[in-house]
Amino acid sequence: MKNHRQVFQNEQKNRGRLLITCPDQPGIVAAVSQFLSNHEANIIESSQYSTNPEGGDFFMRIEFECPDLESKKSVLREEFDTIAQTFSMEWQLFFVKELKRAAIFVSKELHCLRELLLEWESGDLMADIPLVISNHPDAKDFVESFGIPFVHVPANKNTRQEAEQQQLELLEEYDIDVIILARYMQILTPAFVEAYSEKIINIHHSFLPAFVGAKPYDRAFERGVKIIGATSHYVTNDLDEGPIIEQDVKRVNHRDQVEDLKKNGKIIERSVLVRAVKWHIDDRIIVHENKTIVF
Amino acid sequence: MKNHRQVFQNEQKNRGRLLITCPDQPGIVAAVSQFLSNHEANIIESSQYSTNPEGGDFFMRIEFECPDLESKKSVLREEFDTIAQTFSMEWQLFFVKELKRAAIFVSKELHCLRELLLEWESGDLMADIPLVISNHPDAKDFVESFGIPFVHVPANKNTRQEAEQQQLELLEEYDIDVIILARYMQILTPAFVEAYSEKIINIHHSFLPAFVGAKPYDRAFERGVKIIGATSHYVTNDLDEGPIIEQDVKRVNHRDQVEDLKKNGKIIERSVLVRAVKWHIDDRIIVHENKTIVF
Amino acid sequence: MKNHRQVFQNEQKNRGRLLITCPDQPGIVAAVSQFLSNHEANIIESSQYSTNPEGGDFFMRIEFECPDLESKKSVLREEFDTIAQTFSMEWQLFFVKELKRAAIFVSKELHCLRELLLEWESGDLMADIPLVISNHPDAKDFVESFGIPFVHVPANKNTRQEAEQQQLELLEEYDIDVIILARYMQILTPAFVEAYSEKIINIHHSFLPAFVGAKPYDRAFERGVKIIGATSHYVTNDLDEGPIIEQDVKRVNHRDQVEDLKKNGKIIERSVLVRAVKWHIDDRIIVHENKTIVF
Amino acid sequence: MKNHRQVFQNEQKNRGRLLITCPDQPGIVAAVSQFLSNHEANIIESSQYSTNPEGGDFFMRIEFECPDLESKKSVLREEFDTIAQTFSMEWQLFFVKELKRAAIFVSKELHCLRELLLEWESGDLMADIPLVISNHPDAKDFVESFGIPFVHVPANKNTRQEAEQQQLELLEEYDIDVIILARYMQILTPAFVEAYSEKIINIHHSFLPAFVGAKPYDRAFERGVKIIGATSHYVTNDLDEGPIIEQDVKRVNHRDQVEDLKKNGKIIERSVLVRAVKWHIDDRIIVHENKTIVF
Repeated sequence: MKNHRQVFQNEQKNRGRLLITCPDQPGIVAAVSQFLSNHEANIIESSQYSTNPEGGDFFMRIEFECPDLESKKSVLREEFDTIAQTFSMEWQLFFVKELKRAAIFVSKELHCLRELLLEWESGDLMADIPLVISNHPDAKDFVESFGIPFVHVPANKNTRQEAEQQQLELLEEYDIDVIILARYMQILTPAFVEAYSEKIINIHHSFLPAFVGAKPYDRAFERGVKIIGATSHYVTNDLDEGPIIEQDVKRVNHRDQVEDLKKNGKIIERSVLVRAVKWHIDDRIIVHENKTIVF
Repeated sequence: MKNHRQVFQNEQKNRGRLLITCPDQPGIVAAVSQFLSNHEANIIESSQYSTNPEGGDFFMRIEFECPDLESKKSVLREEFDTIAQTFSMEWQLFFVKELKRAAIFVSKELHCLRELLLEWESGDLMADIPLVISNHPDAKDFVESFGIPFVHVPANKNTRQEAEQQQLELLEEYDIDVIILARYMQILTPAFVEAYSEKIINIHHSFLPAFVGAKPYDRAFERGVKIIGATSHYVTNDLDEGPIIEQDVKRVNHRDQVEDLKKNGKIIERSVLVRAVKWHIDDRIIVHENKTIVF
Repeated sequence: MKNHRQVFQNEQKNRGRLLITCPDQPGIVAAVSQFLSNHEANIIESSQYSTNPEGGDFFMRIEFECPDLESKKSVLREEFDTIAQTFSMEWQLFFVKELKRAAIFVSKELHCLRELLLEWESGDLMADIPLVISNHPDAKDFVESFGIPFVHVPANKNTRQEAEQQQLELLEEYDIDVIILARYMQILTPAFVEAYSEKIINIHHSFLPAFVGAKPYDRAFERGVKIIGATSHYVTNDLDEGPIIEQDVKRVNHRDQVEDLKKNGKIIERSVLVRAVKWHIDDRIIVHENKTIVF
Repeated sequence: MKNHRQVFQNEQKNRGRLLITCPDQPGIVAAVSQFLSNHEANIIESSQYSTNPEGGDFFMRIEFECPDLESKKSVLREEFDTIAQTFSMEWQLFFVKELKRAAIFVSKELHCLRELLLEWESGDLMADIPLVISNHPDAKDFVESFGIPFVHVPANKNTRQEAEQQQLELLEEYDIDVIILARYMQILTPAFVEAYSEKIINIHHSFLPAFVGAKPYDRAFERGVKIIGATSHYVTNDLDEGPIIEQDVKRVNHRDQVEDLKKNGKIIERSVLVRAVKWHIDDRIIVHENKTIVF
């Protein structure tokens, strides 16, 4: 809890992460690593990917340890900007001790919420979670037992506008970086989605692109599949069509009725969502042309 | 090869299998097991499934060992017919030593064919394989090295009718029970499919119902899925919509290009197809309302 | 919670289960199914296994639906005893509405306890859990938030006798059928184990028989394995040598330090333990010669 | 076959790989990437790992594309040697078009050999395979059908010395880089192992360290495990204790007799061995303190 996070923040106070996207060409790695070396930063982990070495796109994630990082934050940003311009880079620089602030949206199914909060409490999910919003009051006691504010914002097709208005104000008030839809059963408006582009993580209870939309387990049962799945993705305005972050599956058989598929599905839904959220808060994901690169 | 099969047929000479479908009601198991007991048959393996104990459908597979089975074949059939009428059963009685006769259809991709023939040669796939048909000559040497006749039947959209005519004659001539489409890239006509209803096993190179139809790996790449799959199913006249027998999956990542998906996919295609074929020849599958019960 | 269980008990009031072990011979299934048919019981699920059809051991599990089961309990037991004697059977008859009463033993690692209680609360683990015992006070609040009594029984090598004495009294007082060691880090004495033979389920944090004993993750790291595992088994007086109920594994790589193995391991430990416990309370397990048959 | 390999060699004629091990310190990546940049080499894939950023060991694999690589081979080696001395590196530079030359050793079980040769023939295993050695004649026809020389070298406990003498001469004659023990059932002498240190890849038919030594499936059956495994490792003079490259597992159940475990095991043995061999020939493996880093 607080302790885990404080210990982590102290341990990681000199740890930074750099995410880069640019056209591929020779010399990128040399330039970036020379820049880090100039600041006495030691590269801890480095991953890269090219869609095509000859004229494709280049993606890179570097995690580094830099003595006295706190005092160098602005100078690093300034200096790196010059390199970035040379190579036409889009880039992000993260300081690991500055934890992401996540809001969880939930409805009546609580298994994903529970998994997230238990992982958070045990120190395995290193974010701040200052807010849980639900369109049902069911989770109130559970959430508050972790010392986290719970806000009941009733929402349905007819009240969507007002509900989202209230949600957006809460997200602003709590300074939220990332929204986790933990089986939140409402569709979000395009305006809302755009306001948090590539920052809303959903869990869909099927192996996308199979069973896009409502009642995937009923349709999986109907089709007689032998394996069910769950998919975590960033939310876009095409329903269940956003960039896939993670998927997993579980074997079923002819004995499993719809209810059994749902029970079995819960186990993968929660683990898939937690993995996706961890990769997001560890700055491991770059979105490119509706796909994810997960380093 | 021949040796494996002769040893098997001798070992299993008293082994039978009964597959039953009927409306559920009390007393079915008692009647069937009493019948077997009356003939001194020992039940080796027994599986059953009810869609709903109160008025649903009942499915059963019994494997039994019956002394001197050869001489009792017709009497067993006759006597069981009486029970079957009492309970309105559809039923099939198989004698294990009477191996199924499988024809393999193949095009240019040979990995599934190879796996089937190597499993067959090592005695792990207990069928007769008297015939391989292909619309390309590529596999000829490989197939004939196993002592199996290979027939090249050119087939494309325009020659479908004549090709199928020749294929049907070959299937008749070789007394074929089951057709394995081992990446056979031609669509079969409704007449052909009906002639071998629930006897044509296909492997589709996606995790159905995702990516029905052509070029599933290209589309999986396009969508950015994190897991690819393969599906074996009985062929019906709805493309890729037949009863699913078996599926399996393999994790991929952003580095995998379409070619990598295809390579990785081959590994699951061949194992999924082989499992489905083994279950079929072991009489483990009952088809019911476009789904399979796999005992 | 209470609701789930009451609904279940009402729905399953006519549901029974029969577990049988005996020497194999023809006629067993006929006799048992005739017996059930005589009482108008409909067989819902039936599984059997022979170590060897010619003179081996025979094992069977039958789940049945019997109208007015409550009133027939003693007559069923009496009548079945006659059949059992004919075939030299060991047998158990369970009435599904009579839920098993489980006690959970825990130390400081709470992930398995949490999973068990959340599954229990959501109605997916159909037992009564009237008691949690720990040698540390840490879990007290969490356990009591479910309305379950928590008893802190300090235990270490020196106080084992007294601790077990108190534990045995509690188990008696709460009428416990099955003990779940949810990462309980104390060794039990032979007397204790014998008092609950085949009724103590442990989770060991390795893929047994690899890494029997203490610190399995440290040793897995040391050895450089590429997959870690967890094993649930019945406790016997040979450390980590009891009958294995369930195992599962997770891929790791060279980047994973001991701490990472532990984090990853927790996920499989809790799911493996929960599966084993569910199979036990569903009467799916027969122990035979230090192995389990899981129907 | 030849075609696949020639196409590959032509496509990859400018492709190189650098493997580095050294004490960790800032500036390594900068120096290496600057070196490559100076030679107009574009980094295609780069992976690194530190046991501990503060004074631990550093490992790196870089794959690069360098125009006109053939003509720069010696100059690259010379210049890199200076960097290597600065950072106390152990290093290897590979030119991808120079295929590794693999010899396969086999006994009577041929499933791993078959898989290797079929993968090789289809162009998915990019090595030269100029030699298969067996202590039994069984595989002769199969091997020669691929145009590969097969040498029968009888070997048993008593003739080990002479057999190894003949094998070593053959390995020399055929200029072999890596030896694949594809279920070769003879133990090698320390002298032989040392002559090909970190160049002999074995497949052991268990999930090591469970069931070290002989008859692992018999012992897995005896113990009643619910999952079996296979392990590929470099051979050292401690039996089955060499650095693990890859492992995989498969679920089994109480119905599976020893023979079934063996059949199921074959499927994972061959896929695990093939994966390990591919990683080796792709220069993805660094051995460190009896463990492997697999990039």
